[in-house]
Amino acid sequence: MLHFDSDYMEGAHPAILERLMETNFDQTPGYGTDAYCERARALVRKACDCPEAEVFFLVGGTQTNATIVDALLGRTQGIIAADTGHIASHEAGAIEAGGHKVLCLPHTLGKIDAAAVRAWCETFFGDENHEHMVAPGAVYISHPTEYGTIYSLAELEALSDTAHAFGLPLFLDGARLGYGLTAEGADATLEDIARLSDVFYLGGTKVGALFGEAVVFTKPELAKGFFTLMKQHGALLAKGRMLGIQFETLLAENRYLEISQHAIDLAMKLKQAFVDAGYELYIDSPTNQQFVVLDEATKQRIGAHASFGFWETLEDGRTVVRFATSWATREESVDELIGLL
Amino acid sequence: MLHFDSDYMEGAHPAILERLMETNFDQTPGYGTDAYCERARALVRKACDCPEAEVFFLVGGTQTNATIVDALLGRTQGIIAADTGHIASHEAGAIEAGGHKVLCLPHTLGKIDAAAVRAWCETFFGDENHEHMVAPGAVYISHPTEYGTIYSLAELEALSDTAHAFGLPLFLDGARLGYGLTAEGADATLEDIARLSDVFYLGGTKVGALFGEAVVFTKPELAKGFFTLMKQHGALLAKGRMLGIQFETLLAENRYLEISQHAIDLAMKLKQAFVDAGYELYIDSPTNQQFVVLDEATKQRIGAHASFGFWETLEDGRTVVRFATSWATREESVDELIGLL
Amino acid sequence: MLHFDSDYMEGAHPAILERLMETNFDQTPGYGTDAYCERARALVRKACDCPEAEVFFLVGGTQTNATIVDALLGRTQGIIAADTGHIASHEAGAIEAGGHKVLCLPHTLGKIDAAAVRAWCETFFGDENHEHMVAPGAVYISHPTEYGTIYSLAELEALSDTAHAFGLPLFLDGARLGYGLTAEGADATLEDIARLSDVFYLGGTKVGALFGEAVVFTKPELAKGFFTLMKQHGALLAKGRMLGIQFETLLAENRYLEISQHAIDLAMKLKQAFVDAGYELYIDSPTNQQFVVLDEATKQRIGAHASFGFWETLEDGRTVVRFATSWATREESVDELIGLL
Amino acid sequence: MLHFDSDYMEGAHPAILERLMETNFDQTPGYGTDAYCERARALVRKACDCPEAEVFFLVGGTQTNATIVDALLGRTQGIIAADTGHIASHEAGAIEAGGHKVLCLPHTLGKIDAAAVRAWCETFFGDENHEHMVAPGAVYISHPTEYGTIYSLAELEALSDTAHAFGLPLFLDGARLGYGLTAEGADATLEDIARLSDVFYLGGTKVGALFGEAVVFTKPELAKGFFTLMKQHGALLAKGRMLGIQFETLLAENRYLEISQHAIDLAMKLKQAFVDAGYELYIDSPTNQQFVVLDEATKQRIGAHASFGFWETLEDGRTVVRFATSWATREESVDELIGLL
Repeated sequence: MLHFDSDYMEGAHPAILERLMETNFDQTPGYGTDAYCERARALVRKACDCPEAEVFFLVGGTQTNATIVDALLGRTQGIIAADTGHIASHEAGAIEAGGHKVLCLPHTLGKIDAAAVRAWCETFFGDENHEHMVAPGAVYISHPTEYGTIYSLAELEALSDTAHAFGLPLFLDGARLGYGLTAEGADATLEDIARLSDVFYLGGTKVGALFGEAVVFTKPELAKGFFTLMKQHGALLAKGRMLGIQFETLLAENRYLEISQHAIDLAMKLKQAFVDAGYELYIDSPTNQQFVVLDEATKQRIGAHASFGFWETLEDGRTVVRFATSWATREESVDELIGLL
Repeated sequence: MLHFDSDYMEGAHPAILERLMETNFDQTPGYGTDAYCERARALVRKACDCPEAEVFFLVGGTQTNATIVDALLGRTQGIIAADTGHIASHEAGAIEAGGHKVLCLPHTLGKIDAAAVRAWCETFFGDENHEHMVAPGAVYISHPTEYGTIYSLAELEALSDTAHAFGLPLFLDGARLGYGLTAEGADATLEDIARLSDVFYLGGTKVGALFGEAVVFTKPELAKGFFTLMKQHGALLAKGRMLGIQFETLLAENRYLEISQHAIDLAMKLKQAFVDAGYELYIDSPTNQQFVVLDEATKQRIGAHASFGFWETLEDGRTVVRFATSWATREESVDELIGLL
Repeated sequence: MLHFDSDYMEGAHPAILERLMETNFDQTPGYGTDAYCERARALVRKACDCPEAEVFFLVGGTQTNATIVDALLGRTQGIIAADTGHIASHEAGAIEAGGHKVLCLPHTLGKIDAAAVRAWCETFFGDENHEHMVAPGAVYISHPTEYGTIYSLAELEALSDTAHAFGLPLFLDGARLGYGLTAEGADATLEDIARLSDVFYLGGTKVGALFGEAVVFTKPELAKGFFTLMKQHGALLAKGRMLGIQFETLLAENRYLEISQHAIDLAMKLKQAFVDAGYELYIDSPTNQQFVVLDEATKQRIGAHASFGFWETLEDGRTVVRFATSWATREESVDELIGLL
Repeated sequence: MLHFDSDYMEGAHPAILERLMETNFDQTPGYGTDAYCERARALVRKACDCPEAEVFFLVGGTQTNATIVDALLGRTQGIIAADTGHIASHEAGAIEAGGHKVLCLPHTLGKIDAAAVRAWCETFFGDENHEHMVAPGAVYISHPTEYGTIYSLAELEALSDTAHAFGLPLFLDGARLGYGLTAEGADATLEDIARLSDVFYLGGTKVGALFGEAVVFTKPELAKGFFTLMKQHGALLAKGRMLGIQFETLLAENRYLEISQHAIDLAMKLKQAFVDAGYELYIDSPTNQQFVVLDEATKQRIGAHASFGFWETLEDGRTVVRFATSWATREESVDELIGLL
């Protein structure tokens, strides 16, 4: 059976496991205060070209999103997001459990644009009753989005400018950031993202790590008290060095981008094969997530040999499914899948 | 330099790292739905002699405590705990951030007893204004406690009976449970704990794992909705199999108890050496945490060669410090430390 | 200057003030445990034909909504509501501050319908990832809605059936319930509402009282612990008898419906005058809130003599405004306003 | 039957009811934006000699405390209070429901002192693990306390200095402030309290109003966003003018202090009678709450003719009870009670 269900089906890049082996009996203090974390932070700052950034390592995406949102918002503020944003729909109410409202804008293939954010804010602040309502306190985007799409540099610049015009920090959820940086046609670099956002993270869980997300506050003043907030959220790993070791390994020798590029190359090969075989793409995705429309017979036929993710059922009865590649996908698996089309 | 600061200074038992290596490229579904977790759950149920238990794997102690407390309490209920309990003092307000009050009782060497719980509850329910107050909704104990002490079987039975007499579930925080089960003089077994508590956990982070806590709901009805609550708390690991693999390895071949016994043996050897050398024990602890009173000169002298944890300053100016052994402590290190006394 | 801004611009029905005067030096226990409240509860139960109902008196709408929602929902549940519902948009995040998500459905003139609720729930429970999401835990409707519209008896029956089919209680926000019961064409009685909903309230603030909302749990088991939850929400009035006295007075001699009918009669007279004068109605509202489209010149002309509420600006530049009548509106004022048209 | 159970058993000062009658059909905008509130705010500022103060009117004590605490604290901060403080014990967890911890200090007759606050803060900030704990974010005192005691000017100055030395605002709960200002031996004036605290309130519910608390932020920057926070807490009264009218009436012609003095005079008369009759005072209270120790026979004998509050049972079986006078207590009632001693 071939597996293309998601991009977190395997363990970690072998170099990570090797480092964990080598360092296993080192004795270090906890909670990210060790030398591995310190070196990993330096590598993150350098990769972002943001020497003043405050960097923290957390375990998973939902906890990272909830902790960052808590850090950004006042008690009567909410966070603007696409209605398809992970925080809006797939985190079991973690944001609301923290007391905050997600202020949803309609998405376009998972994205929101600067004009919509501007219009929403102008309407909000123009409403004479706005003091009875939840005020916008930040803007959330994911890059790549939950639909596998990415923002162009121009789109990110416009979003950043607009958010800042209303005094709102821009938070970029980079759970799959590696696949966004290496996506086909991507023109926004890591340095751009660090320059344009106020806080973002480099996802590890889906890009080569056992687990882990590297949070980067490019405006250090927003990180005040974040350590204690992590503790309160249960997001402070006791043996924090596990995260330092992983990110040190991922960021060494350009590994993060190289393994991401691998996933993209295989996803593009797969997409081309779908197109060549006459399949309908649901979204023309430039990243490691490929969305294809399958009729029932084809779904059954491929499904007998390969697993994939269910996305939605179309009105005509056909199904949208997702095939995800990752840093760990073998080219032979992709070739076998192509052979099934 | 020797290090006795805490019991989470090293990585994991080598057998765990080997299993992570072996299984690294297996492809599994996420969130604890894989076969490793299923087997680990079966091993936990068997070790507890509680076939109907619901078992969940979480990453760390604070998140585990906060999620369990959320599952146990109604909105106007609080949880009874010793004022030294981890949830009362060292989790940055995680319980309160979830909307709950910790109802503190004075501790005796980190413990509370059944009579105090009974008296508190009787006073509470006897107060004609108690509907204006936070009602007790559960009882929390840690075993071993934050002071390295343990409950006897008779004490656990009394606490369980008392809690249940008031309709309160008993929650036992087992972050260091291995060291409690193998402590000198311990007469409560894992089966006893499963029988007497309503929910508890087998700590992994401090007992041989990279990270991880195995939560056991011995009353399955209390676990309703716990999966989604974990997600909301950011406590649902994407690559959940990491936890399954670790607990499968720890529970195989009696490994969890054996490595705990190792830490206890070394702690007892160290304690005897302190006594023999004329040091004052602050607490006569039967577990892997040893608390000793040092005068300034001795603290400086030993501190030049070994690190340990600060506990508190006594009125006479001397200092209470903690020396912790663990599954990973080498006997030679203990011998070197003894040589310094 | 004439004032039609809202339905809470005056004090209270004079009979209420008289009763407050008469009873001012009576000495009673607090928190709603007095005889006035007891009699008012009996009157509510009788008016609803629901002898087993649990009745509580709170001060204002937002606190009432937040407290009820807290009582209805589990920690990972949300409440289905129209996106225009008061809890969704005009309560400064009170629901989210309590940890809950509002699950918004698109509205039709402020209403949601049973088919949409059914479809939403079926999609939700059909999603294989639904345990990662906020589950529906209750359904909220307002009657009349924020747009002045009302539900027919058939619509309420369908909503009640649908909610119950998914195990969800139906919560009806009756901040303006009197105006809904007496609305033109209304066919749902108070008894119907008590029969079809699981909890609702009779609004006092907008219907003759100084303040106050009478919450009716028609399923008493849902009210368990509600007194303490009111205290926690700061919604338990110390001199609770103020609420008992007010509702006793409002429910005596059919006063609640009579004063509501007065507001409806004047609103209908005003609506007819708008229609006769060639104004465009934004909504054909059967209740005390009338929404009219005004061009700028007309808005200025009328605005020089009468105040009204801003609703929204249309794309063609015209403005939707709201004229509200109430139990306190004088017919002469309506006639003067009509003279301005 | 005579009633001395509490100080909120009657309605309001007659002048308030008269003003409500007179103004009943005035039409005003809602939420405290009316002219009555504006005038009342001016009177409060003048009485406090604090022209820059921000003043808000809320309905009751628990909601006022919860809203203020929310305004003062960051997410990982708690509020220092006596363990007998109202927020610590009698508000059904309202503070915790808002996500905050109450950091309890042992009380002395309901009070905490500056030295204890200083010592606690020094220990906290001296703990190397304090970033894993809830940090102090404010200091709460009640004046008079729940035990009827008051702070001297020197004590308030020391508390204010100490709180400010650690960067903590001082919040004074003045639910019974009138009785504190006019207490026997009181040397702290309203101007002193405004000068020394950062936020406090003038209680109305227990001092002459139907309901209502006037919150005074003497440091206006702390009040940022408080209006919306009130809305979120359900503490924003729709017909806000009710509060303005009440406080305008209470503050006119020195009425607030005069009616408070009346309660104190009667309480002192009662206390002297207890002493003269040989009763044991539990506390030598200078305010309207008098605590007396009664043996069972006396309790029964007086209880047959007068109601009072239960406080606690002593070890010797005798009972501490509370007799409360108020602005509304008639001297004849006190004389009748004295006749029973």
